[in-house]
Amino acid sequence: MDFRSLAQTYQTPLYVYDFDKVEKNFLEFKEAFAGRKSLICYALKANSNLSLLSFLASLGAGADCVSIGEVKRALIAGIPKYKIIFSGVGKRDDEIEEALREDILFLNLESYEEMQRVERIAQELGKKARISIRVNPNIDAKTHPYISTGLYENKFGVELEVAKQMYIYVKSSPHLEAVGVHFHIGSQLCDLSPITQASEKIADFLKSLLALKLEIKFFDIGGGLGICYEDEKIIPLYDYAQSILSTLKDCEPTIICEPGRRIVGDSGYLLTKVIGEKRNSHKRFVIVDGAMNDLMRPTLYHATHKSFIVGKNGEESVCDIVGSICESGDYLAKDALLPPTQEGDLVVFENAGAYGYSMSSNYNSRTRPAEVALIRGTPKLIKARESLESLWANELELL
Amino acid sequence: MDFRSLAQTYQTPLYVYDFDKVEKNFLEFKEAFAGRKSLICYALKANSNLSLLSFLASLGAGADCVSIGEVKRALIAGIPKYKIIFSGVGKRDDEIEEALREDILFLNLESYEEMQRVERIAQELGKKARISIRVNPNIDAKTHPYISTGLYENKFGVELEVAKQMYIYVKSSPHLEAVGVHFHIGSQLCDLSPITQASEKIADFLKSLLALKLEIKFFDIGGGLGICYEDEKIIPLYDYAQSILSTLKDCEPTIICEPGRRIVGDSGYLLTKVIGEKRNSHKRFVIVDGAMNDLMRPTLYHATHKSFIVGKNGEESVCDIVGSICESGDYLAKDALLPPTQEGDLVVFENAGAYGYSMSSNYNSRTRPAEVALIRGTPKLIKARESLESLWANELELL
Repeated sequence: MDFRSLAQTYQTPLYVYDFDKVEKNFLEFKEAFAGRKSLICYALKANSNLSLLSFLASLGAGADCVSIGEVKRALIAGIPKYKIIFSGVGKRDDEIEEALREDILFLNLESYEEMQRVERIAQELGKKARISIRVNPNIDAKTHPYISTGLYENKFGVELEVAKQMYIYVKSSPHLEAVGVHFHIGSQLCDLSPITQASEKIADFLKSLLALKLEIKFFDIGGGLGICYEDEKIIPLYDYAQSILSTLKDCEPTIICEPGRRIVGDSGYLLTKVIGEKRNSHKRFVIVDGAMNDLMRPTLYHATHKSFIVGKNGEESVCDIVGSICESGDYLAKDALLPPTQEGDLVVFENAGAYGYSMSSNYNSRTRPAEVALIRGTPKLIKARESLESLWANELELL
Repeated sequence: MDFRSLAQTYQTPLYVYDFDKVEKNFLEFKEAFAGRKSLICYALKANSNLSLLSFLASLGAGADCVSIGEVKRALIAGIPKYKIIFSGVGKRDDEIEEALREDILFLNLESYEEMQRVERIAQELGKKARISIRVNPNIDAKTHPYISTGLYENKFGVELEVAKQMYIYVKSSPHLEAVGVHFHIGSQLCDLSPITQASEKIADFLKSLLALKLEIKFFDIGGGLGICYEDEKIIPLYDYAQSILSTLKDCEPTIICEPGRRIVGDSGYLLTKVIGEKRNSHKRFVIVDGAMNDLMRPTLYHATHKSFIVGKNGEESVCDIVGSICESGDYLAKDALLPPTQEGDLVVFENAGAYGYSMSSNYNSRTRPAEVALIRGTPKLIKARESLESLWANELELL
């Protein structure tokens, strides 16, 4: 990848996504589940750029959305409504109404109370809402506590017994139709066994529902598959699919899978430029023009994004790579190994395709970076860098 | 405060700032340093809304900025250029150039290397750059590691010996003029003694500079004074000022103080609405329409913002107050005590004026809240809620 030319054309900090990699990652999911009816619903929260979504739509992707904003993004990008799912623990009434009007595939319900709200809204609209229920299997996904979701101490999903009551309620409601069952135990998962355990639990549950003559068509296994940031062993998709399918021996639901990070994570790079180096008697700091507002993961999750300097060798030494934001929490890498740098050198952070731009902010009145797609190697701007003026336009007119 | 009427008029989630409190807080600083030449430079990073800045400008405030975006905000809001300071560890060349063109009061330098860059740029512009140097006193501020800045392991400031070399260099440079000395040891400080220690160290250093016939006019003591989020004892401003002044017995520099949180923190409220309650066998969750994208502090710093339900009593029980974002890290309060809630109830988070809106993002394609000022009790919209369409306008035209 010609990082120098990209940085020159589009300036830094800059997000670059290799769409060829996105395609490869997506098709790998398709293939893993090829033996079965399946739908790969890309999880927009990882990265919701419209051009990326449109590209995934052209490959046949559906969408896993967690807000009405994401549902609208999916629709605008050309993902068919019958491939769009709306999940999330805090759907507002207006979001539910809009999703029902748009007639998307189904809503994943997160509580008994939410079910009743959806029923009421569907009734008001004279509609029958297709729903699925997110069941919390109470299984430890062994990941960062902030992104572990499958334990009762997490806000997500409902307990099995409650889910059963809900399905029975739904069966007799004229405004609800149960079409799926759903689980999702966490993010950045690198261990297959908790997933298999959860799948077994929910597959058994599914069978008990089918025995009650509920016509559950979709087995929504969530997403959360990890990628290799440092030295994590990632779960092979073939093993993943086989392990899920092994829990579904006596029934044939359509599998819905909701990968986000695994589709787009390793396709992305954050390009930053060295502003200067700084050493004191204790430490070496390489200061770059990117910062925690551009890439929050190191600060928020103590996540590691491997980094390198473009076209530079030399004796490496330990340094922190930091941004210009005025807090010590603003760093992009701790204890990285870099050769000596000079003003203008490019420092590239890998695996920045997921939860990079989507979590970015304007903290310290910094404009958010531009985003560029590489399609068969050819760069295309897919989001322009923000202008300073756009940050306060909305305030200036009220001044 | 009529939270119900505010929520009805402006919807939720909503930031409300009581400008009367802002005024009181600002004037308290003025008064504390009234016996001396002093300049209170409000730290924009806490909250940089233009209407807030314009209000502070009318009270005589200067501005402590950490990016050219903040410098421009200060200028637009009517803060005079001779009251504007530009600090920060990673100033880009174009930012330095723009700041010199705008002829602001001075730049706080963070390294020898940065000094040379400023000199070069000033030379290119045919100007003499007024500078100050941020000295790192290597004193533990005893606060959250992410916001502690006064240790050698932090990226901020330069060691005393290096600072001395820099001042000597500056003295002989035709394009640099040293006008100040600066220190800032951290944020949310509740203990006066490390501040006094740092001030003593830097005051001694100032005296050594004056002995070298350097005409240092400004003693910039930074900001970072804490507020009471839970049960912290805050530092009385009178004691603070007296302790600083006690270290400056033999010289009379103008004191520059850079408070942010202490000016605006307790003036702010985040208003959210209950979407629903959710209980499982382990926990109670109150789900609101605000989330970590609106107020990042609980997730990022494990910070506490006291909360209450408007106009509701009843037996309180422990709950987590969570948003709709799809990660377990998305919460606004852990183990809060609230009475039973119903859909539509208002949950208000206190002390949300600083590092609330300024750190907000569009994660999960959520629009950022509106901001309202209360001036003598009368509400005024100072930033409209973002529209969904504005989130992707910039992407749609490139689709």
